[in-house]
Amino acid sequence: MSIPANKLSVVALGGVNEIGKNMYVVQYGDEIIVIDCGSKFPDESLLGIDLIVPDITYLLENRNKVKALVVTHGHEDHIGGIPYILKQLNMPVYGTRLTLGLIEGKLKEHGLLRDTKTHLIHSDSRISLGSMTLSFFSTNHSIPDCLGIAFHTPEGTIVHTGDFKFDLTPVNNQYADIHKMADLGKNGVLALLSESTNAERPGFTPSERRVGEHIEEAFAKATQKIFVSTFASNVHRLQQIIDATHKTDRKISLLGRSMVNVVNIATNLGYLNIPEGMLIDPAEVNDYEPHRIVVLCTGSQGEPMAALSRLAASSHRQIEVHRGDTVILAATPIPGNERSVARIVDNFYELGAKVIYGSGTVTGMHVSGHASQEELKLMLTLMKPKYFIPIHGEYRMLHQHRLLAEAVGVEKDNIFILKNGDVVEIQNQSARLARKIQTGNTLVDGLGIGDVGNVVLRDRKHLSEDGILIVVVTLSKAESKIISGPDIISRGFVYVRESEGLLEEVNRITTSEVQKLLLEEINQWSTYKQSIKESIGRFLFAKTKRRPMILPIIIQI
Amino acid sequence: MSIPANKLSVVALGGVNEIGKNMYVVQYGDEIIVIDCGSKFPDESLLGIDLIVPDITYLLENRNKVKALVVTHGHEDHIGGIPYILKQLNMPVYGTRLTLGLIEGKLKEHGLLRDTKTHLIHSDSRISLGSMTLSFFSTNHSIPDCLGIAFHTPEGTIVHTGDFKFDLTPVNNQYADIHKMADLGKNGVLALLSESTNAERPGFTPSERRVGEHIEEAFAKATQKIFVSTFASNVHRLQQIIDATHKTDRKISLLGRSMVNVVNIATNLGYLNIPEGMLIDPAEVNDYEPHRIVVLCTGSQGEPMAALSRLAASSHRQIEVHRGDTVILAATPIPGNERSVARIVDNFYELGAKVIYGSGTVTGMHVSGHASQEELKLMLTLMKPKYFIPIHGEYRMLHQHRLLAEAVGVEKDNIFILKNGDVVEIQNQSARLARKIQTGNTLVDGLGIGDVGNVVLRDRKHLSEDGILIVVVTLSKAESKIISGPDIISRGFVYVRESEGLLEEVNRITTSEVQKLLLEEINQWSTYKQSIKESIGRFLFAKTKRRPMILPIIIQI
Repeated sequence: MSIPANKLSVVALGGVNEIGKNMYVVQYGDEIIVIDCGSKFPDESLLGIDLIVPDITYLLENRNKVKALVVTHGHEDHIGGIPYILKQLNMPVYGTRLTLGLIEGKLKEHGLLRDTKTHLIHSDSRISLGSMTLSFFSTNHSIPDCLGIAFHTPEGTIVHTGDFKFDLTPVNNQYADIHKMADLGKNGVLALLSESTNAERPGFTPSERRVGEHIEEAFAKATQKIFVSTFASNVHRLQQIIDATHKTDRKISLLGRSMVNVVNIATNLGYLNIPEGMLIDPAEVNDYEPHRIVVLCTGSQGEPMAALSRLAASSHRQIEVHRGDTVILAATPIPGNERSVARIVDNFYELGAKVIYGSGTVTGMHVSGHASQEELKLMLTLMKPKYFIPIHGEYRMLHQHRLLAEAVGVEKDNIFILKNGDVVEIQNQSARLARKIQTGNTLVDGLGIGDVGNVVLRDRKHLSEDGILIVVVTLSKAESKIISGPDIISRGFVYVRESEGLLEEVNRITTSEVQKLLLEEINQWSTYKQSIKESIGRFLFAKTKRRPMILPIIIQI
Repeated sequence: MSIPANKLSVVALGGVNEIGKNMYVVQYGDEIIVIDCGSKFPDESLLGIDLIVPDITYLLENRNKVKALVVTHGHEDHIGGIPYILKQLNMPVYGTRLTLGLIEGKLKEHGLLRDTKTHLIHSDSRISLGSMTLSFFSTNHSIPDCLGIAFHTPEGTIVHTGDFKFDLTPVNNQYADIHKMADLGKNGVLALLSESTNAERPGFTPSERRVGEHIEEAFAKATQKIFVSTFASNVHRLQQIIDATHKTDRKISLLGRSMVNVVNIATNLGYLNIPEGMLIDPAEVNDYEPHRIVVLCTGSQGEPMAALSRLAASSHRQIEVHRGDTVILAATPIPGNERSVARIVDNFYELGAKVIYGSGTVTGMHVSGHASQEELKLMLTLMKPKYFIPIHGEYRMLHQHRLLAEAVGVEKDNIFILKNGDVVEIQNQSARLARKIQTGNTLVDGLGIGDVGNVVLRDRKHLSEDGILIVVVTLSKAESKIISGPDIISRGFVYVRESEGLLEEVNRITTSEVQKLLLEEINQWSTYKQSIKESIGRFLFAKTKRRPMILPIIIQI
């Protein structure tokens, strides 16, 4: 499959009609540039699956055309798929310092560092890849060093915003390139791809500084140990926590692998400034008075294995939460995580801690990293695009973003809500939804990439609900009789001890089915299996209203 | 186990440190009165479980002392356990008309109606059960006919609020008995048990009338079909939807079993007033102009099998949602349900509908049925209890409720936060946490009550994550050799087709393990099984980072 030369195409391989696994393609003629390569977590229906990454069949079929992977920022939904995808398709990776720092950590873990070519870029870089030139602009987001990308092509300019908000009082003075955005718009943007995460939210997202003020206030009030949990990647927030630690003359200790990892990378690259001697080892925490301690940890989303959960369950090896300590959840629970977070809050209250939790809007301990409606309108107004493609969001978010675009004057017919795989082609300044390429979810389970599919998942679902009942019968070919069994083995169905009568009956039914078929001189084993399955299934459903997986095994000697 | 005479005790058998399965016991000497008998839904860790009901071991051990089950109102978390519990312990059931109506529906379904004695009560009833007299007071809540209960005992008065809010402008003029509450307080309340659902929420919960106003407004604007989804049991809201239907000269049709059921019961008992000829069959909907139609349906929490989900997926047999139709979700998603609800909203937008969704605080389409902080303080102020036991809530809610009680003057040491099973004993006007009785979760799976426990659940969890690998080997006792197999069967682990090499290797490992043990003349089959399990487990984890359940089956002939 190939796109005719001199056509400009835009495709989402992931990231529309979903939150997560962002991956977009800009193609001009025979030149493909990939933007981002994210992962997402499976929902509860994908039993046992660890991660989802985009299906890159299209890129594999066009592997010689792929010029580069350009990464907007270092969040998992933009970089989490990189090691899995690079195993299938090697391509040079472009990113800013922090972004590359985080990517390189992953590559190392997967043994890919040596074979991957990385290119450091910054907001003033200009890179030429065939007939396209890429320029960049800084944006504000909940991780430093974020870029928007402008693709200058012979057909016109395509802008991809990356993730953004407008923080007019950013921490560390990391201002967004608002003048560059205005210039892009002035010079003409053919198509804008803009993120839609908060398109349902009215108003203007508050500045990250607001969180710093609330943290300082809470630190000033605390009389004992302070535990703060937030997203490790929110380096600006980490800096504000460190600043508040400094102001209250405390030491800080880090818990959680990703927290230690990000703090190391960010400190080494100069994004995080920790005063000499402030950082202490978890083992040293108990050497200090409680009012001298801050513990900064992962697990703000209630992840059961993370540091915060272990602290709440009093199962951390080195550190305990005591009556009177303060626990701050500097994060709003992401939909789906509320119950796990609530369980942690319950536990901390039981330990006698003061807990600051709940929506960041109320506590002031969290602000979003994404643009609300007024900011999305501001971006659209700055860029004045002819065509608009809302990206990075579920359908209702894309829909609301469309309404915002219409409100600021984008032509209704010039807005494309895509499904993953939909190709928008632009030729002679005119865009249309042209066709669809293969894409979708690639499931990662342990070391397997894409080796678990619907059949396996359906079996897991079935097993998870009612368990399995295995029936083994050994038959003598010569004598046409049962010589061993039936043996009944059940897992995840019922307690064997409490259900002896039930399983004896299963045994009896199996024997009588097999003997009947032997008498009829049937020797297709599939008939035996089917017949055992059906008769036992009927019997068990009548008795228990459950439908375990029934697996007859017939051995003939 | 028995409680000495003349002691007054209060126990929660369910409902504290959780939302759901409310069941409380008030005991004076040898007389036990049970309050409510709820169920709750399992969380995602209880694979395959349908329902959870309280463990009533204590009641079964004292079955001759149990005088009555008094039910405060007809919500599932207060009545859902009744059919399962009555199968174990028959007791007379007391409730108001609507409450009994809903209970009787359940009893019928479970074939228990004939053997259960029910007693109709109302807010002015006084019933004497041994040395206790019970009086009642009406409360406002999201279902009509709710009662609070006062237990007048020789030791003093215990008040149980049931679920409540203070709605000062209630629909259908169903006022709460605020003067009775004041009288109880004036005459002295020894201990108050008050619900804590919204103890984290500041302010005063808005009146249900507010929802009616917003519904009317949305109905007036709609130009085509209107779909409204809400909790079937919220009869006041149903009435307001019917009133708005009447005002806009539409017909109404009901979708969903529980909606049809509640509307029938409530209409028959006079709680719901539907104008003659307004109600039409779903099959008739298409006979009317779209602007003449309202569809009232279940599924506002995103339940996948409910009517709303089917409409969103365009898979309802009789009714379709078209471009321009209006869909109103008159319910706030309960934590844990956000993602399923969001999926439905996405689907309706894709169909081109206008969708009113999200938090009721924003849309005005939902108000809580539970008292917020100011109302909880009002209840505490009216009752002026000596002792206070916050009930009906998770730990953090009970904790916040305690702080509210302290704020209005209840002695700190007179407040008891209980765990299920904790017994508060009161003697000579003095209360103490005396001891603990057995209680907990009884799991309902299909027809089985309590026959699924930890081992079965652990197996289901294991099976759900990595599936199962069954290895069957048949040995000849006489010849000490393998005569059939190994046969490898996998379910929920990997695609067999794509993993032939892997399974061949499993086969090879099994053969070599078995032959080695045969050579060593070991004939304990458990050794064979253990050895196969370990060597295959090690191999598969190294190759796949997965740990399927490995089930070796050795057959000897």
